[in-house]
Amino acid sequence: MARTVLLPVLLSFLLLPLASLALTQDFCVADLTCSDTPAGYPCKSSVTANDFYYHGLAGKGKINPLIKAAVTPAFVGQFPGVNGLGISAARLDIEVGGVVPLHTHPAGSELLFVTQGTVAAGFISSGSNTVYTKTLYAGDIMVFPQGLLHYQYNAGTGPAIGLVAFSSSNPGLQITDFALFANNLPSAVVEKVTFLDDAQVKKLKSVLGGSG
Amino acid sequence: MARTVLLPVLLSFLLLPLASLALTQDFCVADLTCSDTPAGYPCKSSVTANDFYYHGLAGKGKINPLIKAAVTPAFVGQFPGVNGLGISAARLDIEVGGVVPLHTHPAGSELLFVTQGTVAAGFISSGSNTVYTKTLYAGDIMVFPQGLLHYQYNAGTGPAIGLVAFSSSNPGLQITDFALFANNLPSAVVEKVTFLDDAQVKKLKSVLGGSG
Amino acid sequence: MARTVLLPVLLSFLLLPLASLALTQDFCVADLTCSDTPAGYPCKSSVTANDFYYHGLAGKGKINPLIKAAVTPAFVGQFPGVNGLGISAARLDIEVGGVVPLHTHPAGSELLFVTQGTVAAGFISSGSNTVYTKTLYAGDIMVFPQGLLHYQYNAGTGPAIGLVAFSSSNPGLQITDFALFANNLPSAVVEKVTFLDDAQVKKLKSVLGGSG
Amino acid sequence: MARTVLLPVLLSFLLLPLASLALTQDFCVADLTCSDTPAGYPCKSSVTANDFYYHGLAGKGKINPLIKAAVTPAFVGQFPGVNGLGISAARLDIEVGGVVPLHTHPAGSELLFVTQGTVAAGFISSGSNTVYTKTLYAGDIMVFPQGLLHYQYNAGTGPAIGLVAFSSSNPGLQITDFALFANNLPSAVVEKVTFLDDAQVKKLKSVLGGSG
Amino acid sequence: MARTVLLPVLLSFLLLPLASLALTQDFCVADLTCSDTPAGYPCKSSVTANDFYYHGLAGKGKINPLIKAAVTPAFVGQFPGVNGLGISAARLDIEVGGVVPLHTHPAGSELLFVTQGTVAAGFISSGSNTVYTKTLYAGDIMVFPQGLLHYQYNAGTGPAIGLVAFSSSNPGLQITDFALFANNLPSAVVEKVTFLDDAQVKKLKSVLGGSG
Amino acid sequence: MARTVLLPVLLSFLLLPLASLALTQDFCVADLTCSDTPAGYPCKSSVTANDFYYHGLAGKGKINPLIKAAVTPAFVGQFPGVNGLGISAARLDIEVGGVVPLHTHPAGSELLFVTQGTVAAGFISSGSNTVYTKTLYAGDIMVFPQGLLHYQYNAGTGPAIGLVAFSSSNPGLQITDFALFANNLPSAVVEKVTFLDDAQVKKLKSVLGGSG
Repeated sequence: MARTVLLPVLLSFLLLPLASLALTQDFCVADLTCSDTPAGYPCKSSVTANDFYYHGLAGKGKINPLIKAAVTPAFVGQFPGVNGLGISAARLDIEVGGVVPLHTHPAGSELLFVTQGTVAAGFISSGSNTVYTKTLYAGDIMVFPQGLLHYQYNAGTGPAIGLVAFSSSNPGLQITDFALFANNLPSAVVEKVTFLDDAQVKKLKSVLGGSG
Repeated sequence: MARTVLLPVLLSFLLLPLASLALTQDFCVADLTCSDTPAGYPCKSSVTANDFYYHGLAGKGKINPLIKAAVTPAFVGQFPGVNGLGISAARLDIEVGGVVPLHTHPAGSELLFVTQGTVAAGFISSGSNTVYTKTLYAGDIMVFPQGLLHYQYNAGTGPAIGLVAFSSSNPGLQITDFALFANNLPSAVVEKVTFLDDAQVKKLKSVLGGSG
Repeated sequence: MARTVLLPVLLSFLLLPLASLALTQDFCVADLTCSDTPAGYPCKSSVTANDFYYHGLAGKGKINPLIKAAVTPAFVGQFPGVNGLGISAARLDIEVGGVVPLHTHPAGSELLFVTQGTVAAGFISSGSNTVYTKTLYAGDIMVFPQGLLHYQYNAGTGPAIGLVAFSSSNPGLQITDFALFANNLPSAVVEKVTFLDDAQVKKLKSVLGGSG
Repeated sequence: MARTVLLPVLLSFLLLPLASLALTQDFCVADLTCSDTPAGYPCKSSVTANDFYYHGLAGKGKINPLIKAAVTPAFVGQFPGVNGLGISAARLDIEVGGVVPLHTHPAGSELLFVTQGTVAAGFISSGSNTVYTKTLYAGDIMVFPQGLLHYQYNAGTGPAIGLVAFSSSNPGLQITDFALFANNLPSAVVEKVTFLDDAQVKKLKSVLGGSG
Repeated sequence: MARTVLLPVLLSFLLLPLASLALTQDFCVADLTCSDTPAGYPCKSSVTANDFYYHGLAGKGKINPLIKAAVTPAFVGQFPGVNGLGISAARLDIEVGGVVPLHTHPAGSELLFVTQGTVAAGFISSGSNTVYTKTLYAGDIMVFPQGLLHYQYNAGTGPAIGLVAFSSSNPGLQITDFALFANNLPSAVVEKVTFLDDAQVKKLKSVLGGSG
Repeated sequence: MARTVLLPVLLSFLLLPLASLALTQDFCVADLTCSDTPAGYPCKSSVTANDFYYHGLAGKGKINPLIKAAVTPAFVGQFPGVNGLGISAARLDIEVGGVVPLHTHPAGSELLFVTQGTVAAGFISSGSNTVYTKTLYAGDIMVFPQGLLHYQYNAGTGPAIGLVAFSSSNPGLQITDFALFANNLPSAVVEKVTFLDDAQVKKLKSVLGGSG
C-alpha cells in the first residue's frame, strides 16, 4: 500500500466515524467533589497518567504506638483512579510485637503479599466458627474472604511489611475493638451484646477513647 | 497493658491513619433530590439512624375498594435507606374477597411472609406456562421469582396481612390490568396484542380509567 | 375470530416454536446434593410449588437459654427455592431479657420487620465507628447494611418477634463471640488481636465451649 | 534480532510459564447435558469455532397461524456459545396482520433491529402505566427495558422481519395470554386476578388449550 | 361487577397507593450532560418513546477508504436509551476488500448478525492463542467473547452488512493498529513491546497519523 | 453471669439452631476436577488453611530469554482459594532490558506494586487511543483498567520485580504478539487485519512458532 495514497485518507479516518466513540468509558477516575453513588463516584472529566498512579504506599506508614502497626489505605478516597475498577490497595507495616487487630472488610475480599518479615495471619469462618491460620514469610500470599473476621500480627524478630489488594475500590475496614469501644455505644449495651464484663468494657473504652 | 501508658496514645490512634478512611462507603442513603442512576441514587451527605428506619408499614394501608386490598411500598422512593443495598419491602392488606391482581416486579424477586389470615398465591413460569400455587397461612413464606406473573388473594374468612421483601431497592410493580386498561393504549391495539374481545377491553378501560 | 378456526391451530401453536424455550431459567431451585458454586447451587431438575414454599418459620424457634433468643434461618440450605434469587429469610424470637448478640452477615444486607414486642437494635459503621440505634415497635422496619456489626435485643416487657429478609440467598451469620470464643483459636492469639484480658477470654471460652 | 538466536528459545517460551494459563476462562460454552446453575451452565470441555456460530436464524421461522408470526430463539438452549456472555438473539417473522402478542422477558432487555417491513411496537412502564410506541421501518432500532410488557405487530403491507438481541443468555419469554389461558389455572382464579369476564376467559382457554 | 359501582372508585384507585410508585426505575435514559458514573449516566428526567428509538443505523455508514469499511456505533453516547440496560448496537458496512481490523471491546461481548454478503470472522483465545474462524453468510450469527481480539472482513464479491449487538451499553472499541500507531507512543516503545521492526512501526505511524 | 449456670447450656447452644447454618458459603475453594461455570468452579468439599495460602510467587519466575522476563500467575488455576472471591495475583520478574509485551486481561483490571527496580509502564485508552505512561520505582502503584492494552518494561539498571493483583479470580492474559504470531492464523489474514507487511508477519511467526 503506497504511503502517498494513504496520506490524504488520514483526516477522515481519524474523525469519522471513530470520533463518535469519545464517550466510551474505559475508566472512571473518581471526582471526589461529587456525591458517591452505590456503584462509585461520578467520573472526573479530565484525566492524566497521574490519576492511575499512587505513591502513597512507597514509604512506611505512621506507626500507631498502641498496635505498633500502620494500615495505610489506597482506597478510592486516596487513589481515585481505582473508582469503578473493582480493586484497591493498602500497605501494612507491623513492628516487632505489633498487630493489625481483628477486623473485617464489609465490601471486599483481601489478598495479602508479605514482602518482608514474618506474619501470623488467620480468619474465622461464619456458621462453623472454624479458624484458618498460617504463618507467612516474605513472598507468601494469603487470601481472606469477604466480610470474615481476620487478623495479622508480627510473628518474627524484625519489622514486617505486607502489600494488600482488595476486590473492591472501597472495601471498608471495621476493626472490632474500635466498633465496640471507640464510640458512644453505652457500656451496658456493649456488655449485653458481647457478654464481656463491665470492667473489661470500661477499661477498653478508656483506652480507645469511647464514652458511655 | 497499663492504662497510664495507653492514654497518651489516644489522639494519634484515632486520627492516624484511620481518619483517611472517612470515605468508606458502608451505605448510601438516597438523596432523592438528585437524578437516579442505573445503580441507584447518589448518596445523601448527612445521615442519622432515622434514615435506616421506616414506620410507614406499621399501620393498615388505604384499602382500594375495587380490589379490596392495599399494597403499601417501602421502596427506595419511600425508604431512602435501602438505596444500593439490594433489598426493599412492602405491606399487603387484603380484605375478605380482596385480591392483589396479576402483576410482575420487573427488577426483583419477592419473598412473602403471611402474618395474618389465609392467602392463595401463585405464579406462572415462562416458556412452559406452568402454574405454581399454594394456600398460605400465618407464618408461611413463599418466594416469587423475578419478573414472573403472580398474584395473591384472600382465601380466608378474615382480613389477611402479608409482609413482603424484594431483592432490589426498587423492584417495580407492573399490574397487568393497569398496563392494559389504565392508560391511552388504543383498544384496537390492546385487542390485537391480547386477543381479548372489544367489549371486554372497553369495559375494563372504563373501569380502570383508560382512554382510547 | 371464530373458535372453529382457532381449534385446529392448537397443537402446532403450543409445540412450535415455543417448545424450544423449555430451557429458559425462570428459577433455579437448589439441588443440595451437588457441590455449591460461587453463584449458588446447581438447579434441581424437577420442581413443584412446594419448592417455593417454607413453613419452618411459622412456629417459635428453639430458645437458647444463654441468649434467651432463637435465630431460625430460611437460607438456601433450609429453603432451596431461594437459590439464585438474591433473597432469603429468618425469624427472630427474643424472650424478655434476650439478645441476638453482636454479629455480621458477610454476604448480605438485612431488613428487619418487628412483628411483636419491642426491640432495641443498632449497627456500627466502619471507619468512623458511628453507632446507629433505634427502638423498634411492632410494625417498624430497620435495615442493616451488608457486612456491618449489628445487634438486636428485647427492650420490652414481653416476647419479641422479628421477621428478617436478606439480600442474598446465603448471607451468612458471624456472631463475634462465637468467632472469638467458640473454637480452638488460642487464648493468647485472641488477646493479641482484641486487647481483651486473659481472664475475660478464658471465661468466655469456657462459657462458649472454646478450647486453647 | 537474529532469527538464528531466537529459534532455540522457542520451546521454553511457549511452554513456560504460559502453559500454566490454560485454565483461563475466555468463554464457557454450555454443556447442556449438565444441570444449569444460577449463573449459567457448566462449560463444555472441548470447543470449536462452530460453538460460536449459529445458523438457525438464517431462514424464516415456522409461522404459527394463530398469531401469523414466528418467534425463533437463539438463547443458550439453542446456541450454547452464548452461555455466560450476557447476550443472546432471536428472529421475528411477522406476516401481514401478524402479531407477537403482549409479553415480557423476565431476565433481559431487548434490542430490536427491523430488517424488513413495518413494525408497530410498544412497551408499558410500571407504576405510571405510560405507553411508549413507535412505528419502525427497515433499519430502525428500538429497545425494550427488562421485564416490561411489550408487543410488536406488522403495520405494513408485506412481511416484516426483526432481529433481536437480549442482554442475557437466557432472557425468558412470558406471553401474557399463554400464562393466563394455556395452562390449568382455574378460570375462577384467572377471573379473580384479572377482572376478565368468565365468558372471555373460557373462550381464550379454549383457543389456547387451557383447562380448568 | 357493575360499572356504576366501579366508576366512583376510580380516582382513589389511580392515586392511592400507586402514586407513590412514581420513582420506580423501569429504565434510565442517559442524561449525557451529566458526568458518567461506573454504572452509567444519571437518568434524564423527561422521557418519550423517541428515547428508546434510534434511526442512525438505518443507512450505510461513511466508508473509510483505508479500511473500506464503516463501523457505526449505537452505544450510549449515540443512543442514550440503552443506558443501564446492558445492551447496545452497531452497524458494519464492509466494501469488497474491506476489513474491520483486529480489535477488542474491553467491556462487552459481541453478537454479529450478517444481513448481507459474506464475512470472514475470527477471534483468538487468550492463554492458548487458539484461533476460531468462520465464514458467515446472510442470516448467520457469530458471538465474540468479551475482551478477546477479533476481526471481520469481506470475503465475498459484493458489499457486506452486519448488525451487531453488545452485552454492555458502552462496550468500547480498541483497534490494535490505532492503539499502536495513531498516537504519540514513541516508536522505540512500540518496538520494545511488540517486537515489530522500526521501519514497520514508522510506516504505520505515518499511515495512521501517529507521532513519535 | 455465673459460669456454673452457663455450662449446662453449652451443648444445645452450639447445636441449635446454628448447626443448620453449616451450608453458609463464606468461600468456595475451586474443585479443579469439575467443569468450570460462568461464575467459577464448583466448591471443594473439604478445606484447610493451606487452600487460602500460596507460595508459588515467593521465588523468581523462570525467565524467558526472548522477553527477558517471567510472568508467574496465581489465578484460580494455580491458587484455587481465590475462586469466587473476585481477586487473584501474579508476579513479574523483568531482567535488565526485559519486557512484558503489549497485552490485555480480558476479564479484569490490574493493580501493580513495584517492589524492586524501575519499571516503565503504560496503557492505551480505546476510542481516543490516548497513551498513559509512568515510570515506576519501588513502592509505586499503577492501575490498568480492564481490557485495555498495556505493557511494562525494565527501565532501570538492575532486575525489577512487580507484584500484581487482578479484580477477577481468572482475568486472562492475551499477549498481542502471541495472538497474532504464535498460532496457525494465516499470514495473509494477519496482514489483512493489521496492515503489517508480509515480511514482518513471517519473521515474527517464525520467532514465535506460528504456522500459516
